[in-house]
Formats: sequence, structure tokens, C-alpha cells
Amino acid sequence: MAQGTGIICAEVNGREEELQRRRVAIVGAGLVGSLAALNFARMGNHVDLYEYREDIRRAALVQGRSINLALSQRGRKALAAVGLEEQVLATAIPMRGRMLHDVTGRTSVVLYDPCTQQCLYSVGRKQLNELLLNACDKLPNIRCHFEHKLTRANINEGVLEFQQPHHEEVVSASADLIVGCDGAFSSVRQQLVKLPGFNYSQEYIETGYLELCIPAKGGEFQMPPNYLHIWPRNSFMMIALPNQDKSFTVTLSMPFKIFASIQSQEQLLAFFRQHYRDALPLIGEEQLIKDFFKTRPQHLVSIKCKPYHYADKALILGDAAHAMVPYYGQGMNAGMEDVTLLTSILGQQLPLDEALAQFTEKRWKDAFAICDLAMYNYVEMRDLTKRWSFRCRKWLDTLLFRLFPGWIPLYNSVSFSSMPYSECIANRKWQDLLLKRIFGGTFMAALLAGSAFLVQRFH
Amino acid sequence: MAQGTGIICAEVNGREEELQRRRVAIVGAGLVGSLAALNFARMGNHVDLYEYREDIRRAALVQGRSINLALSQRGRKALAAVGLEEQVLATAIPMRGRMLHDVTGRTSVVLYDPCTQQCLYSVGRKQLNELLLNACDKLPNIRCHFEHKLTRANINEGVLEFQQPHHEEVVSASADLIVGCDGAFSSVRQQLVKLPGFNYSQEYIETGYLELCIPAKGGEFQMPPNYLHIWPRNSFMMIALPNQDKSFTVTLSMPFKIFASIQSQEQLLAFFRQHYRDALPLIGEEQLIKDFFKTRPQHLVSIKCKPYHYADKALILGDAAHAMVPYYGQGMNAGMEDVTLLTSILGQQLPLDEALAQFTEKRWKDAFAICDLAMYNYVEMRDLTKRWSFRCRKWLDTLLFRLFPGWIPLYNSVSFSSMPYSECIANRKWQDLLLKRIFGGTFMAALLAGSAFLVQRFH
Repeated sequence: MAQGTGIICAEVNGREEELQRRRVAIVGAGLVGSLAALNFARMGNHVDLYEYREDIRRAALVQGRSINLALSQRGRKALAAVGLEEQVLATAIPMRGRMLHDVTGRTSVVLYDPCTQQCLYSVGRKQLNELLLNACDKLPNIRCHFEHKLTRANINEGVLEFQQPHHEEVVSASADLIVGCDGAFSSVRQQLVKLPGFNYSQEYIETGYLELCIPAKGGEFQMPPNYLHIWPRNSFMMIALPNQDKSFTVTLSMPFKIFASIQSQEQLLAFFRQHYRDALPLIGEEQLIKDFFKTRPQHLVSIKCKPYHYADKALILGDAAHAMVPYYGQGMNAGMEDVTLLTSILGQQLPLDEALAQFTEKRWKDAFAICDLAMYNYVEMRDLTKRWSFRCRKWLDTLLFRLFPGWIPLYNSVSFSSMPYSECIANRKWQDLLLKRIFGGTFMAALLAGSAFLVQRFH
Repeated sequence: MAQGTGIICAEVNGREEELQRRRVAIVGAGLVGSLAALNFARMGNHVDLYEYREDIRRAALVQGRSINLALSQRGRKALAAVGLEEQVLATAIPMRGRMLHDVTGRTSVVLYDPCTQQCLYSVGRKQLNELLLNACDKLPNIRCHFEHKLTRANINEGVLEFQQPHHEEVVSASADLIVGCDGAFSSVRQQLVKLPGFNYSQEYIETGYLELCIPAKGGEFQMPPNYLHIWPRNSFMMIALPNQDKSFTVTLSMPFKIFASIQSQEQLLAFFRQHYRDALPLIGEEQLIKDFFKTRPQHLVSIKCKPYHYADKALILGDAAHAMVPYYGQGMNAGMEDVTLLTSILGQQLPLDEALAQFTEKRWKDAFAICDLAMYNYVEMRDLTKRWSFRCRKWLDTLLFRLFPGWIPLYNSVSFSSMPYSECIANRKWQDLLLKRIFGGTFMAALLAGSAFLVQRFH
């Protein structure tokens, strides 16, 4: 497993060069891990990519994970940088807006971007991961190791130990740089958390989620496919994203208390008849009962930490660095944007410890911001989308965006631009302030005009 | 190590009873751990008290730990409950107020409580811990196990594994309830952090600390002993507490950047001559150089988490549950108050899981509050104590406290009462609001009076 001298032959920018490059061990071969592997390898490093699951290309659908994701600008940009964007979009399903379902079953559409028609893309996690792993296979300086579960890491010495299923003996490996792309419960981060000066927080929300399915019927979608469907119900909600097989993956989000109150099949059906009347026949009563009681609702956690690196020895990316609640659809996009930023910093040929420190410094505010935004959207999606004030603001934002292209609404700056997340928030605050002043001013003007009128009249 | 049936004989309230009680394993035999052991044992449980260090009664002074602490009301109450308060106070050194040292060496005194003369007590960590352990030794149902380092814990099964120095084999133990009193870097908490629904944050501050000493001279204190000495210097500060051997333990707190800027003996002496002119000769130049460069400055961390328990299987107390920066002198007091609250809840004979849930529910807001207050005092001690506005408010608070005994200033409610910490903050907010209204009202009244006077004069 040891890589000897670290001198390898790699095809970089079409030229064969003998390079003295780093041995990079990436832990986690999910979307961010495999994308990071591609980027490190394209810079000439030798990459070992470790994954504790089996090769997803040989696996059946992974249970209990969201099987489709909303790809937006930041993810697209990262995929474009490794030449994969077109291939991904070719099979992705565009979602042009939110389709809201009220309790009576009536629907209404709120487009994401009525002005420039930008949209989200529903992509399958499995297909996207397969595409990235296939791209990894094409580079001679990436080696993939599946069914390798990290059991011990000595970050200072760059030593890793893995356990394989049905193998007694431990597999040891060494690396110059360890990169943790191993998700919200990252084992690599567990090493960093022990170091003095590492700030960390994990916050669980009181809401759990559970996945259901609206299957295809007669080979067709049962609802219009080009929308992200939402059933907002104040303290809880349900959403559905289209899959390529013409089914929808449905995610039911609600407080654990409500989950706990539904114990019997009758209670479940009554609950759905009351709140999700139109969705019930699409899911099917029998299938609903089966899926609902099959697993317990999953927890949702928001994780912030800082720094993301340790000297020139270790780095964490994606959910390992900033897990968020899923309500802005930015988890994957933010993770992929980590890789874009990291690659651009590494391109400056700084000493590695300086480069990693710069990555932390440039990234943490934006990572914190998107975690906060996701938490905010958790409220907006289940609650505000129903409110008059939300629709009014949406309409006003659209109008202003049409009149002044510089007026980018919050959702658009997050999903359809590469504006740093923290600037998206600052931008929105500035917009809020301006609107408040304008409307405050209008109100005051109206008040003064009214007073002047009354004074004139009664004098 | 297994305790068999859990049926033991214990002297409870003077009566010998055969009791079917719980086997409680307490991890950490520091101040909170040994106090918790006394309380669990007095309720008839069988207690195993595990400590990874050697028996502090046989140890030389523990290096790198603060060797004296400020005992206040909450700690006193907890000690009184196990009959130890008088014994502790007999050798403790009362501190009646803060003695502030300015850069010229001039001192001024701000009493903690000019009205009712309450004070803090400087106690030695080692002496206090010894006293508590001696009390543990007197109870037949407490067994102490020193040099037992927790290496593995299965909370669900109540199984613990310990490593002893110079012993290859692992020591296994089982318990009905595992109580982690193992400090800010608690191993027991590490198990809880992995559980879904466990909220956790660790926040390091940019300030480090380092301990120095002002030794006794000719068998006497070199400064007035009955004060907590403070050298506030805006972004950094130094404090000193008296020891029973007539020395002072000095704690130098400053940003790591400043520590890093002092590399040579000359730089160190120049720094002290500039900022701590009066303290330098008391510490002694030679000793200062030796102590300053002996160790690296230590980190300070603030830890919040919730819940403090897991079912009826595990519980964390003290720093393991709520480590805080040391600037309110409440770390030990808050930890001891945990034990007071827990004991009163356990006395209600609820099912254990309900009792532990009630402990979390009643404690977390106050624990969060004292962590926040300690962080606030970090600013106040180094900065505000010098400011005119702070002294002005202190004077006003004292006046109001004298006139209306219900007007308890923040510092007094925290240090000299058992008011829940969160109420101390709420109380202060209410006082702030009232003062603002009164002074706002006075200002408006003055303004109106002034206007009326001007109107009269110029008409």
C-alpha cells in the first residue's frame, strides 16, 4: 500500500511528465471524494481513494439515502471543470420552479427564475457517482479501494488503517496528505476535533425525515416532472423530486413527535387523507404503509467547524466540513464548490500548509452562511411558501430583477450564481434595508400627504 | 470487577439496610466526581470511582493545572450538603474584592459586596480534592480505582474498559449507570457525541494562559492576601489568587499572537516592565523567565451540549457537560451545583430515565447561561474593570442594592446566591431596561424642562 518514492508518471495537460508529487489519500468515494480525486490527480498527485461501502457501480440502490439531488450552478461549474457537466445534464431532469400542493390538492407554480429561465436539475446520486468513478478509472494515478473502512488515523504521521469485510488483518497505508470526504459523521474529522483550537458544533433539529415513492404509472410520470413539488404544512412538509425512471422520490419531513404519534395503519392513512390528499393515491395506500413503517425516521444535523485543515497533513471537504439540513438543496453543490476553490488555490503553487490555511480562511464564512441559509429555508419551505408576504416578496423580487438585472434575489444568487454564500446573505440584507427605506419612505410620504390634506380641510 | 447482584449493605441515614441499589460507575475522581460519588453512595448505591491519574493524596502538585480556585455560594452549598463546608472554609482564604493594578503599579479596590460583605474563598484544588476523597474512603459503598484510564465504553450495555500503567491486560467493569465527571475532554461524552440527537459545540478562544507564581517572602504574602488581584490591560490581563502557603498563583491570559511575539528573555522582561511593572519584582526576573518558557500557553475552551444523559444508562456532569472559560470563577461551583440539583431530583424516587431527563431539562439553560457569562466576563475582567462606565454601574448597583435588597447585582446573584444562572441573566436584563427607562425618562424630562425654559425665555 505504501507508494515508495511518490515518483509517478501521469498524463497532465496532455504531456507525459515525471513528477515528484504528493501521495494523497482521500477517504470517502462519494460525490465530493471522487470529484476531489479527479482534481488532485489532474494536478499530477498520486491519489488513493478509499471507500467503506462496496463499489456503487456494482451495488443495488443504496437504502436510506436520498437517491436524487438538485444540481445547481456551483455543482455544474465544478463538473464542467472536469469536463463532465454536459454528460450529467444530458440525463438530468430540469426543474423550473416549485409546484405547491395545498390541502385540497390544488396546485400552483412559483418559477425559480421567470426572467432568465434558469432551473435546478434533478440528478440521481448513484448515476452521478458512477460517472465520477468511471472518470477516476481513466486516470492512471488514481487507485480506488472499496470496502475499506477507516478504523484509525494518525494525521501527524500520515498513517491510516482500514478494515475490510471478512478480513481479520488490518490494511495500513501512508500518505502525505489525508483528505476527509467522508460525510457528516466523518472519521477524519474525529481526529481533528481532538486538536486544541478546533472549533466544532453539531446541531440536530427536532425534525426527522423518511423517504417514500410515487412510482411511474403506465411508463409515465404521475405528476408534472419539471418541478420540485412541495406540500407545505406549517410545522411539517413533504417534497418530491423526479427520477429518470419516471418515479418521484418523496421526502416526508416532520417533527419526531408527529412521527411518534402515528402508530397504526389507520392513523397513517387518516393523516395522509387530511394533509396529503392528492399524494395518497399516487403513492398508493399499501406502498405507503409498507415504506412508512419499514424504517425509523432519520435525524438531520447541521455541522459547522473551523479550521478545515491541519498543517499540510489533513483536510476535510463537503459534508465532513459543513453538513447542513437539506432544505436549500445546496449540500452537494457546496461540497463540489469546495473542490473548485481548493483547486484554484492549489494552482497558485504555494507551500501546501499555506494553501490549506488559505482554503480555510476563504471558505469558512461561506460554509457557515450556507448552513444558516439551509436552516432558514427549513422554515421557509414548510411555512413561508404558503404565506401572502412570501409570494408578494417573490413577485417584487422578480419585478426588480426584470427591471434591474443587478437585483439578484436571494434564492437566485444561491442557486444560479457563484456569488460567495456569505455575500448572498449580505446582498439580501442590503435589499431588505433598501425596500424597508423605500416603503418606509412611501408610508411616511403618504402619512404626510394625508396629514396635509386633513390640516387643509379642517382649517 | 463485576459487582454481582448489586445487593450491598450501606449505612444510610444512620440505619443499616439491605438495599437493592444501582451499581454506579463514576469516571473521574476530581472535585465533581468525588462529590458525586459521595452523593450517590449516601443514597445507598454502590459506587466505583475511576480516575486515570494516580491518587492525588500521594501525588506531588499537579503541573499545568490551576492550583487554586474561587469557591463561592453554589460550591459551598454542595459541600455543606455532604457536611464538608466548615472544614473547607477553615483553611480557605477569603477574597473580599478585586484589587486592580494599573500600569504604574497603583492599586484600587472594588469590593464584591460592600453591603453584606460576602466574599469568594480561595481554596487549593489539591486540598479540596483530598478532603473529598477522604470522605469517600469513609463510606463502605465507594471503591476508588486510581490509575484506571477509560479506553472503551459501551454505554448501552454498561460496560467499561480501563488500561492501567505497566499492565498489558485490559480491566473490564460493568455498571447500571455510567457517570462521566471526566472534564472538558471527557471520554464518556465522546460516546454521547456519536448518538443522533446529541447537540454539541466546542469553541476555543484566541487567548491562551500560562501560570506563574508570586512566592511568599520571609514567610509572608507579598501582596494583600484578601483580594483577587487583577492587572487588566484591554486585550490581555493577569490575575493572582492567594494560596495557603502565602504564595500567589498568577495566571497570565493573552492572545496567542502576543505569546508568540515574546521569544527572548529580553522581550519577556521588557513586556513585563511595560505592562506589569509592580508584579515583576514580586515574581522575580529569573523565576519569570524559567516559568514562562517552561511550557507552551494552554488553550481555553467553552463547551455546551445537550442532553446530559442517555436513557437510564449514562450521565455527564461538571466540565464534561459544560466546560467554560475561567473568567467567572464558576467552573467548579457550577459542577458542584450539578450534583446538588441531581441529588434533589434523584430524591424524588422517579424512574431513573425520567430523573435523568429532568436533570437535563432543568440544567441545560443554566449551564448555557454560565458558559455565556464566563465568556462575557472574559471581556469585562480584562477591559471593563478599567472603564469609567463599569465603575459607575458598580457604584449605582451597590447604591440600589443598599436601598432595595431585592436589587441583586449580576455578579452577586452569580457568586453569592443560588439563583439559577439563566435567571441571573434575565434579572440583569430587567435591571438594564429599568435603568435605561429611568435615565431615558430623566433625560427626556430634562430636555422638556430645558425646552420649556427656552420657549418661555424667547417668547
